[in-house]
Amino acid sequence: MLEIIKEKIAQIPEILKERDLDLWLTFVRESDTMKDPALDIFIDRGVTWQSAFIFTKDGQKIVIVGSLDAENIKDSGLYTDIRTYVSSIRDVLKNTIQEINPQKIAINKSSNDVMSDGLTCGMFETLSDILKDTPFISRFTSSEPVINALRGRKSKTELERIKRAVEITEEIYAQVTSHLKVGMSEKEVAAFILDEVEKRGLTTAWDRHHCPGVFATVEAAAAHASPSDRQMTKGSVMHIDFGVKYQGYCSDIQRTWYFLNDGETKAPETVQKAFDTLKDAIMMSFNAIKPGVEGRVIDKISRDYIIENGFGDYPHALGHQVGRSTHDGAGLLCPEWERYGTLPYLKIEKGQVYTLEPRISLDDYGVVTMEEMICVTENGAEYLSNPQLELILIK
Amino acid sequence: MLEIIKEKIAQIPEILKERDLDLWLTFVRESDTMKDPALDIFIDRGVTWQSAFIFTKDGQKIVIVGSLDAENIKDSGLYTDIRTYVSSIRDVLKNTIQEINPQKIAINKSSNDVMSDGLTCGMFETLSDILKDTPFISRFTSSEPVINALRGRKSKTELERIKRAVEITEEIYAQVTSHLKVGMSEKEVAAFILDEVEKRGLTTAWDRHHCPGVFATVEAAAAHASPSDRQMTKGSVMHIDFGVKYQGYCSDIQRTWYFLNDGETKAPETVQKAFDTLKDAIMMSFNAIKPGVEGRVIDKISRDYIIENGFGDYPHALGHQVGRSTHDGAGLLCPEWERYGTLPYLKIEKGQVYTLEPRISLDDYGVVTMEEMICVTENGAEYLSNPQLELILIK
Repeated sequence: MLEIIKEKIAQIPEILKERDLDLWLTFVRESDTMKDPALDIFIDRGVTWQSAFIFTKDGQKIVIVGSLDAENIKDSGLYTDIRTYVSSIRDVLKNTIQEINPQKIAINKSSNDVMSDGLTCGMFETLSDILKDTPFISRFTSSEPVINALRGRKSKTELERIKRAVEITEEIYAQVTSHLKVGMSEKEVAAFILDEVEKRGLTTAWDRHHCPGVFATVEAAAAHASPSDRQMTKGSVMHIDFGVKYQGYCSDIQRTWYFLNDGETKAPETVQKAFDTLKDAIMMSFNAIKPGVEGRVIDKISRDYIIENGFGDYPHALGHQVGRSTHDGAGLLCPEWERYGTLPYLKIEKGQVYTLEPRISLDDYGVVTMEEMICVTENGAEYLSNPQLELILIK
Repeated sequence: MLEIIKEKIAQIPEILKERDLDLWLTFVRESDTMKDPALDIFIDRGVTWQSAFIFTKDGQKIVIVGSLDAENIKDSGLYTDIRTYVSSIRDVLKNTIQEINPQKIAINKSSNDVMSDGLTCGMFETLSDILKDTPFISRFTSSEPVINALRGRKSKTELERIKRAVEITEEIYAQVTSHLKVGMSEKEVAAFILDEVEKRGLTTAWDRHHCPGVFATVEAAAAHASPSDRQMTKGSVMHIDFGVKYQGYCSDIQRTWYFLNDGETKAPETVQKAFDTLKDAIMMSFNAIKPGVEGRVIDKISRDYIIENGFGDYPHALGHQVGRSTHDGAGLLCPEWERYGTLPYLKIEKGQVYTLEPRISLDDYGVVTMEEMICVTENGAEYLSNPQLELILIK
């Protein structure tokens, strides 16, 4: 991970210049307990007492930590300017910022984006108190544009890891298909998948409680629920939502199966139509995606097409970024709903990895859905997953 | 863990009454990425969209989550009043609070205590916007007194698990003593310990980067550093800082060894005096601890005694609480230093588990330190660890 962290740290000054920010401050404590999601970008270990990670557009990298943490930070080999304190961080932090005298200070505060919102209320209060007699508080702004660019613009190594995570996920999905039988329970299928993940010495991309999510029949629970004792039955669809973490990077892919009824050789027309509609919706959004387009535009293409075809709307975004986390922060391919704040209006950038995951709920069969992964290129996008082009039929 | 969560939820109304608070609100999103430390107290799984966990002094328990999370929360069996939304949490959250009309609302915001500071700046902004035309914003106060009581007052089951974690740690320490030899490196000793932890199917109490912390010779790094290639040498001290997590609960114990020089049958007088001073300091603080006393009083007893005996002061608190986390939040047995905020003045409560861990740095030998674990009782305290009464000598 050290190599990637170095790549990311090297990107910071350029991004700060581009976003017109003088200094980016991450202010944290006890990071084993409450971890600012930004930390992973520039350090591979935790801190205990109040600590500040400071980056400037001129390329300065300063770490201020309690004396007991200094050795550990130094050992990372990532920082040389490490400043320490024993009883209070106040003077050293204030002096450091005064020395730099930044006109615009990015702090990790964002109502939009969880990845850029690592600063807690109590830590903000402490920071404001430390800087109370200075002009710096009025120069605070959100670090969202910095963090989004750092997480979004994948380096070559990052992309390779994501591709490998995707490959492994598809490999396991192929094994699932050979393994599936009518009468199996969601739990049994999940156990099979987890076993395959463990055999490879990996972990799931998100909480094992609901990774994989396995959803059998029309009775299946909503997304994010844990697998149950519900069984696969003839004449119904089943879908799985699953990904692995490979060397710190995630995949996130969904596939849909149909369990044939006695005498059937293909899925009922409604199921097939839903599948085809989703396949086309994904393709249409994929074809439209390119740097500079707002996320909401890409979301709307799939959403409108599904509704035009007589199906109901789905209660979530078309796609999210994937990286160190499965939900890797802003941008987002989402509708203009209040809970998404200003996210629908963020512009797509080259190097971002997105999912495309519309869904259709069929009253008589269950949920049909595919989730593909793509990477934004100079003028468009490329698929990282092999898109599901056929409904998988199980006898 | 479900049983303990039920025990904790049952404690909430009583604690709210005692602390004169009407409602406790935890407001979170994407908890796999940014986890409010309070969540573990009352739920065993994560949430995705903006979510609110509401407890009232009358015993109401209300969860508001995005529609896709509802099933998962219901499956936990912990909540029945689950309210959902699709496009915005605004109305349902505002209506719920209006319906209860609390006069005092505790939110997870604290500059003192990381465990009570899970609300981020962005989420606070969202919350303030949702409640902007109501009187409720002016009724916000810190949930610190609630969370401290909930984490601090250990139930019978919690205490049993901590005792077992302590027992296992002492067992592994005994194995370390039989295993130690001059010339071994810090890394080798750490690998031996990690192997013993894994054999038992457990994890370390904190980040494996520096759990165990192994500190050999006078050249050893400061606490919180990772084990290095530095070797155990004759005529120097070595100490280890280590704990395990057993069924979700931690231990945290330090022990000191002395490597005899050729011809020596006991440690040099200075080393022995440092050891005895610490042993007595711990005993004196232990004897003084009881409910109602402020943490700083207990810290001062050890600290003053060590200085009176001609040794230098140590740059950290005498002791912290232990529970789900190794550093389990306020109270704290600490000096009146700025970075501890108001923590030195918090009163000790029955049922809290603390460490006692003074240290002495000897210029010619290295760091001598012991860390014991105790539980506060009705009128005093009891040891959970078997205090180190003799310096362990290695030939």
